[in-house]
Amino acid sequence: MKLKQNTNLSINYPVCFERDIFSMPVKPFWFDLTKADEKADAIFYVDENVMNLHSKLECQISEFVNSFSGISKFKIKTVLPGESLKNDFSSVMKIVDELVEEKLCRHSYVFIIGGGATLDAVGFAASITHRGIRQIRIPTTVLSQDDSAVGVKNGINYKNLKNLLGTFYAPHAVVCDSNFLTTLSNRDWIAGVSEAYKVAVIKDADFLNILIQNAEKVTSRDMDFMEKLIQRSAEIHLNHIKNGGDPFEMGSSRPLDFGHWSGHKLEIMSGNSLRHGEAVAIGIALDLSCCVELEFITEADAKPVIEGMKRSGLPVWSELLEKKADNGLEIIEGLQEFREHIGGTLTLTMPKPLGTQTEIHDLSEEVITNALNRLKHLVK
Amino acid sequence: MKLKQNTNLSINYPVCFERDIFSMPVKPFWFDLTKADEKADAIFYVDENVMNLHSKLECQISEFVNSFSGISKFKIKTVLPGESLKNDFSSVMKIVDELVEEKLCRHSYVFIIGGGATLDAVGFAASITHRGIRQIRIPTTVLSQDDSAVGVKNGINYKNLKNLLGTFYAPHAVVCDSNFLTTLSNRDWIAGVSEAYKVAVIKDADFLNILIQNAEKVTSRDMDFMEKLIQRSAEIHLNHIKNGGDPFEMGSSRPLDFGHWSGHKLEIMSGNSLRHGEAVAIGIALDLSCCVELEFITEADAKPVIEGMKRSGLPVWSELLEKKADNGLEIIEGLQEFREHIGGTLTLTMPKPLGTQTEIHDLSEEVITNALNRLKHLVK
Repeated sequence: MKLKQNTNLSINYPVCFERDIFSMPVKPFWFDLTKADEKADAIFYVDENVMNLHSKLECQISEFVNSFSGISKFKIKTVLPGESLKNDFSSVMKIVDELVEEKLCRHSYVFIIGGGATLDAVGFAASITHRGIRQIRIPTTVLSQDDSAVGVKNGINYKNLKNLLGTFYAPHAVVCDSNFLTTLSNRDWIAGVSEAYKVAVIKDADFLNILIQNAEKVTSRDMDFMEKLIQRSAEIHLNHIKNGGDPFEMGSSRPLDFGHWSGHKLEIMSGNSLRHGEAVAIGIALDLSCCVELEFITEADAKPVIEGMKRSGLPVWSELLEKKADNGLEIIEGLQEFREHIGGTLTLTMPKPLGTQTEIHDLSEEVITNALNRLKHLVK
Repeated sequence: MKLKQNTNLSINYPVCFERDIFSMPVKPFWFDLTKADEKADAIFYVDENVMNLHSKLECQISEFVNSFSGISKFKIKTVLPGESLKNDFSSVMKIVDELVEEKLCRHSYVFIIGGGATLDAVGFAASITHRGIRQIRIPTTVLSQDDSAVGVKNGINYKNLKNLLGTFYAPHAVVCDSNFLTTLSNRDWIAGVSEAYKVAVIKDADFLNILIQNAEKVTSRDMDFMEKLIQRSAEIHLNHIKNGGDPFEMGSSRPLDFGHWSGHKLEIMSGNSLRHGEAVAIGIALDLSCCVELEFITEADAKPVIEGMKRSGLPVWSELLEKKADNGLEIIEGLQEFREHIGGTLTLTMPKPLGTQTEIHDLSEEVITNALNRLKHLVK
């Protein structure tokens, strides 16, 4: 005898784009996030660096909570900055301990304020406590606002493997505040732009043209342009999750990972001296060059994109691309590692033509080597 | 500006009821669980006690895998028996380590063979590794086959709190083999029957009558009857998850927990000398008596159910129900603890009339005290 379970989990959450989210009077969007008749406890976890850079943040949060009807008891805690928290299993378990000690339940709120790594690590802790406490994710970097924070993944590094432990968990809400971007270093401001290029290349030719035509607005730190870039990039990421029909990637659904097979590898090869966004930019440039080799696009298509990234301040080449391993180029090991991370058959998403995507299941050493030579020639 | 994520996660898995699942030739249902063109690695985790009681199991699994096209590499590992694994965080993390060392990916299989505690603990480890490795759950007890194993929850005990850490994660498949039930002690065989009473009382009056009329078939270890009992109970549990519209209990959706507020408390008060199923049986008897007080049902309704449980060998009374705490009866503390575990407002599911359910948000000390007196009188 066989029974079948066949049901749906409805995934609904808003992604808000605001400025000065904790300023007084309480901004209207907050009231949409909570039920009028419900008061819940909350803990705010803030990346230590963000807290130091925004000296008034702690006061602002306190003032906000005291004026806001949706929250009763609250605490504010700082956590290790960025990736150092994701690498520290015991600090993540300390967050679990705090959630328990403060008696948070599944209807309480965990506010997470920081970049992608902070959101990933605190989000993981909150998602396994009581099988998931409501998370309000407040990304503070370009990369997290335009890419990682808007989705349903969290995770921590474990046994030196990136994102080895993690869950799929839908946030209660994502709130992007461009005010946090003002304190980013130029390097971090620029690095996150590569994820916008990533989605534009495979999903939206118009957006890609806007990115190329306004490349200098990135280096000049034009906030209006950056806000638009983030919103459109976030929108494409949300639509990808929505339309993929497999938000938790249980089947063969692919994350938006154009340029990432070599990007991930470059990050590791550089000993993390390359930022994720920077490594991805180089990965995008390499994959564009591969697509020219594969005749998916022409060199005339690829060149303006690579130059646009360059004018935005993004790196499009690294000496590491030519580093030799025992059996050829070390970068090529990234293909196998990428397959292992996702599981199943190797699948790479590539543009064909620009603004649309196709999937390939093989990328030969010959294509990669030729693409590297072409890219080197293009960028010199 | 505000964007909205609005999508669905499709949850589909079979729940198979079979005998001798690893016997040769390979049973047809296994082929439905895997793709013909896909070979994946697997690890089998088996409760140590189950492995000892079924001396041929290891050989049978090996023979099965060697004859089955869906699995390539495999290993068999034993784990601490039952709740002792759920209580041991480091043993659970050791499972994570093994999954990593064996290079399992999201498309590999983790077979879990054991009772509810084993399924919960190994399932938790597998659900957080690579954000979830496919799980094939093979429950070996009445309680896990008719209740806990068919759903989407897993968890471990942490900081002395039951199921404090856990995730919602849909299994790849659930496979119930009644052959495993033959080695259960009488106590374990009987204890799991209380969960069938639980769902029958609030969901299915016909099933309740069948349980009452055939109560002696439980104590006589009638396997055909037990298989039918398990299948109908599992079916009602699956339908509840399906029709609740909130399978991961993100909103106010309720698990099927009639009789559980006092059941959970009794388990703890007894120092776990009461089995979960036994404590739930007493909890059901108490809640039925409360429902008579509330005039949801008559004493003539409640009496045959309580007597049916008794004839099935289930306990329906415990001296612990009358144990005094500082402020009245200790059992009443269970109400508040129950609310905290689920979060939000207290919600109790009660029959009104038998076979249908209603929700209440308050249960006064007076009602509970009167119900206790009534129950004591009924069962003596």
